[in-house]
Amino acid sequence: MVITDDRNSPHEAQFDLSTYLAEGKALVETALDRSLEITYPERIYEAMRYSLLAGGKRLRPILCLATCEMSGGTREMALPTACALEMVHTMSLIHDDLPAMDNDDYRRGKLTNHKVYGDDVAILAGDGLLAYAFEYIAVETKGVPAERLLQVVARLGRAVGAAGLVGGQVVDLESEGKSDISLETLTFIHTHKTAALLEASVVSGGILAGASQEEIGRLSRYAQNIGLAFQIVDDILDITASQEVLGKTAGKDLKAQKATYPSLWGLEESKRQAEQLIEAAQAELSPFGPSARPLNAIADFIVRRQY
Amino acid sequence: MVITDDRNSPHEAQFDLSTYLAEGKALVETALDRSLEITYPERIYEAMRYSLLAGGKRLRPILCLATCEMSGGTREMALPTACALEMVHTMSLIHDDLPAMDNDDYRRGKLTNHKVYGDDVAILAGDGLLAYAFEYIAVETKGVPAERLLQVVARLGRAVGAAGLVGGQVVDLESEGKSDISLETLTFIHTHKTAALLEASVVSGGILAGASQEEIGRLSRYAQNIGLAFQIVDDILDITASQEVLGKTAGKDLKAQKATYPSLWGLEESKRQAEQLIEAAQAELSPFGPSARPLNAIADFIVRRQY
Repeated sequence: MVITDDRNSPHEAQFDLSTYLAEGKALVETALDRSLEITYPERIYEAMRYSLLAGGKRLRPILCLATCEMSGGTREMALPTACALEMVHTMSLIHDDLPAMDNDDYRRGKLTNHKVYGDDVAILAGDGLLAYAFEYIAVETKGVPAERLLQVVARLGRAVGAAGLVGGQVVDLESEGKSDISLETLTFIHTHKTAALLEASVVSGGILAGASQEEIGRLSRYAQNIGLAFQIVDDILDITASQEVLGKTAGKDLKAQKATYPSLWGLEESKRQAEQLIEAAQAELSPFGPSARPLNAIADFIVRRQY
Repeated sequence: MVITDDRNSPHEAQFDLSTYLAEGKALVETALDRSLEITYPERIYEAMRYSLLAGGKRLRPILCLATCEMSGGTREMALPTACALEMVHTMSLIHDDLPAMDNDDYRRGKLTNHKVYGDDVAILAGDGLLAYAFEYIAVETKGVPAERLLQVVARLGRAVGAAGLVGGQVVDLESEGKSDISLETLTFIHTHKTAALLEASVVSGGILAGASQEEIGRLSRYAQNIGLAFQIVDDILDITASQEVLGKTAGKDLKAQKATYPSLWGLEESKRQAEQLIEAAQAELSPFGPSARPLNAIADFIVRRQY
């Protein structure tokens, strides 16, 4: 990991992102495992757990936990919301993979939900995870004023609905097979499909900790920038990474004639734009001082990741 | 409407349920119309509005409003939750109608969502409505303490998820084409597919108004009883009502060899059971006195309705 000038004290130089991410992932996966017990009717709980516990970076929950700590809260305060964010993200993957949508057979190297449980149960598993996410925040969060939790519910709902993820997915579907997608449309898709939920992850961590309006504004801009950078890097990796590393069908965007940042800008300019977004994201963190190390490092990680 | 002995004062005898329901429906439909404006990307908002504004009795929102008033609150306090309940109900109808589920072409005499907008947009319209329901309660409710709103969020999430609607739908799908469904399984399906959301509608009205734990218990039992009665009457009407009155394919359960209460009990015993449930429901309302007139009348209506 590269430590930039304002974070190079001996203590901070020891910050190890891969350990931080591994610990966060372990914490989140233990919590997710406990969040959803199998009971009658078993098939739906199994389907929900199959995708919820299918791995992944757990970036959204880790961002929520990290932001809550950075803003003066504890990880315990944010853990139910962190789990809820992963439930919502998992719902979107299950529904996106359906034959009526992207029709994917594999996800993270495993069969997709509907290939194992059928389209009907996969639709319901997504619905169940989405509904449970809100219930889980409301019931499981301890030590946070109800007003803050309501703000989190509102932000999460907005990030998933037509003003967020769902809206981005609709424009993505409408754009399929069209070679003349504008930069504006492509950016709409990604600010809604990807950045909206990343923003909700970061901002909800701040809200839970009682961050000020000015801080929430900074967190929101940080997240939007890393969200868009994340998607640009995804597009780049789709071209450059092998199927083995990615665990999904590489080059799929090209084959589907999907508009991507590299198709509009070329690979080099795409990389440059991603790095500029990361710099802008990190600039928003400066008032948080040394406690912003994890979020700074995660921003670096997003442009440097190979999968 | 039949006025029973404990509600026969001159003032109460004037209570006209059909006017009450018509007024409630008009109030809810105006609120629903305002709840969701069409913006870019228009197609998803149009799809959401198509089903949300497709008519229906609006029984869930009316129950929520009525219970809130009965418990000492105002209709204004409950209106956003009432709208959210209809959004959730609409989501469940859109997803249930999909080819991967019940594969219905018509609903309330109109083409189903996916027949108009395609399976992909219909799935997303359901997701969007479900997410928006929670956002809407959190953002739009005025004059209610945040703690109560969080309880409503929790109850609504539970009513929709695997512990409610989704769980009931999964067992329903598993039971299709089986002629040996037990009474326990049939009752599980309906207490989860139908009664859970009706219960959330009634109980959330009480929570918003600040009802006591004892009152919430009574409201919950009232709703479970009318929910099950509602489904028994639905099964009866599927056999006895004509397609014209019902606006959907009558006799469909019979053709699909679906287990129903009449198929287990016969028509007469089914009617008797529905009436017993309604009596039990109404008994729970006695401590609320004359202000329980609307909920009492709605219970009567459920067994007497012809569509």
